[in-house]
Amino acid sequence: MKLLRLGAPGKERPAVRDSAGRIYDLSGLTGDIDGPFLAGGGVQRVRAALGSGELPLLDAEGMRTGAPVARPGKVVCIGLNYRDHAAETGADVPQRPVVFMKDPSTVVGPHDTVLIPRGSAKTDWEVELAVVVARRARYLAYPSDAAEAIGGYAISNDVSERAFQLELSAQWDLGKSCETFNPLGPWLVTPDEVPDPQALGLRLSVNGVQRQDGTTKDMIFDIAFLVWYLSQYMVLEPGDVINTGTPAGVALGLPDTPYLRAGDTTELAIDGLGSQRQTFEQA
Amino acid sequence: MKLLRLGAPGKERPAVRDSAGRIYDLSGLTGDIDGPFLAGGGVQRVRAALGSGELPLLDAEGMRTGAPVARPGKVVCIGLNYRDHAAETGADVPQRPVVFMKDPSTVVGPHDTVLIPRGSAKTDWEVELAVVVARRARYLAYPSDAAEAIGGYAISNDVSERAFQLELSAQWDLGKSCETFNPLGPWLVTPDEVPDPQALGLRLSVNGVQRQDGTTKDMIFDIAFLVWYLSQYMVLEPGDVINTGTPAGVALGLPDTPYLRAGDTTELAIDGLGSQRQTFEQA
Repeated sequence: MKLLRLGAPGKERPAVRDSAGRIYDLSGLTGDIDGPFLAGGGVQRVRAALGSGELPLLDAEGMRTGAPVARPGKVVCIGLNYRDHAAETGADVPQRPVVFMKDPSTVVGPHDTVLIPRGSAKTDWEVELAVVVARRARYLAYPSDAAEAIGGYAISNDVSERAFQLELSAQWDLGKSCETFNPLGPWLVTPDEVPDPQALGLRLSVNGVQRQDGTTKDMIFDIAFLVWYLSQYMVLEPGDVINTGTPAGVALGLPDTPYLRAGDTTELAIDGLGSQRQTFEQA
Repeated sequence: MKLLRLGAPGKERPAVRDSAGRIYDLSGLTGDIDGPFLAGGGVQRVRAALGSGELPLLDAEGMRTGAPVARPGKVVCIGLNYRDHAAETGADVPQRPVVFMKDPSTVVGPHDTVLIPRGSAKTDWEVELAVVVARRARYLAYPSDAAEAIGGYAISNDVSERAFQLELSAQWDLGKSCETFNPLGPWLVTPDEVPDPQALGLRLSVNGVQRQDGTTKDMIFDIAFLVWYLSQYMVLEPGDVINTGTPAGVALGLPDTPYLRAGDTTELAIDGLGSQRQTFEQA
């Protein structure tokens, strides 16, 4: 199932997209797609309603697509989780997941304008598989317990300002938390439609030039391990988002470091999760 | 004015404490003390209601004190912001603020139990002055603009697990985001009651032994600068919390590194902002 949120920022309406691409309004069933919805059996209710044919069709023509989950409680990110990306940034392959955070208010819709921060010369892209948490995860016993905590998957652009991230201090969050720096969506795709999340192609192009072309097969730490690992150190709550790392091909790692400028357009896709397209503007 | 929230976790009732220590119920005036309350003139409404004598007294006897603001959108932390603390940790005095984040769900009441994470041998304390944001701050022009964005001050214990923070990767957030790791309160004290936030004594003791005894005079980057600086890189939203750093005297910096154990009790105080007391238990 593909859950989505349509409408103006802060006024998105919950919706579901069926296998034929038809969009149905979920406003009669839930106020929003958020932590309480995911934790409270919302997906099952949508499935039943979709099956019984009772949901009204929604004319989505011309409507903005929001992030597929309402503002998350936290956005946890995993750094250097693909060998080729660790190599291109000059970093060692980490022995343990590198964990940092983004300001959750950076989450925007998949096709929203992204702002290049004032004073930025090194705004960069990162296509990532995002995991959305559906159930509280605290000290999971085994990585195999992670599946129960996962509500679905989405495309995430973990936009990064490399000077802010790497040059202003040794802590990365500053360069990850700029306004609009986390386009998410278009859909929250439930796990039943993602039979193997470790076999998904991820692609990103800038102004039509392909820059990233990876596969989640190449993750150093897989999704089940990451969810288990994080749950040993923090409590994952319904609605939280985990950005699971990016493959090679970011501007930082390219010979001419072609960082983003106002007017540039990025397009992102992950197998089965749809696509995103953002235009960059100066903040 | 001293705003506070009383009651069971997740069911706190908003309240105000007057200069004589009387507690009044604010439930008739606002649903909660949170970002929309602070941004929407809530403090002025409370002040008017308090002045006109219309607020009902609240019998706070036996009631738990919650954090004085409802779950923040983000908790931004400043590292190494006191020279003596930078020195005790072996770090250089930073040229710019060191910025990292805590999971906002770590915020608990000022007297709540704090959990020592499983596998932890290095749980540490940090008394800090917390700044609560009342108005959106984005690209402030000058540090002198910061005052308008500040809703008040509170005591924060930026509890930290040093092995998770410093040994598992170079990114600190993992050791800062464990469950219950951010006692906050007891009060949100409005700026009119804190004439000089750069002249406040901060103290912390463990099991009755004083460990930290600093003053906000010794901050490397002062509060106005920090708010201005952060606003160049992220958007500060109403209800957000900024932990502004800790003075010397943490376990990490003491000769015998007396990290916290189950059964230990910490007491924290900042001039004019009240006091906290936590007992530590094993998670």
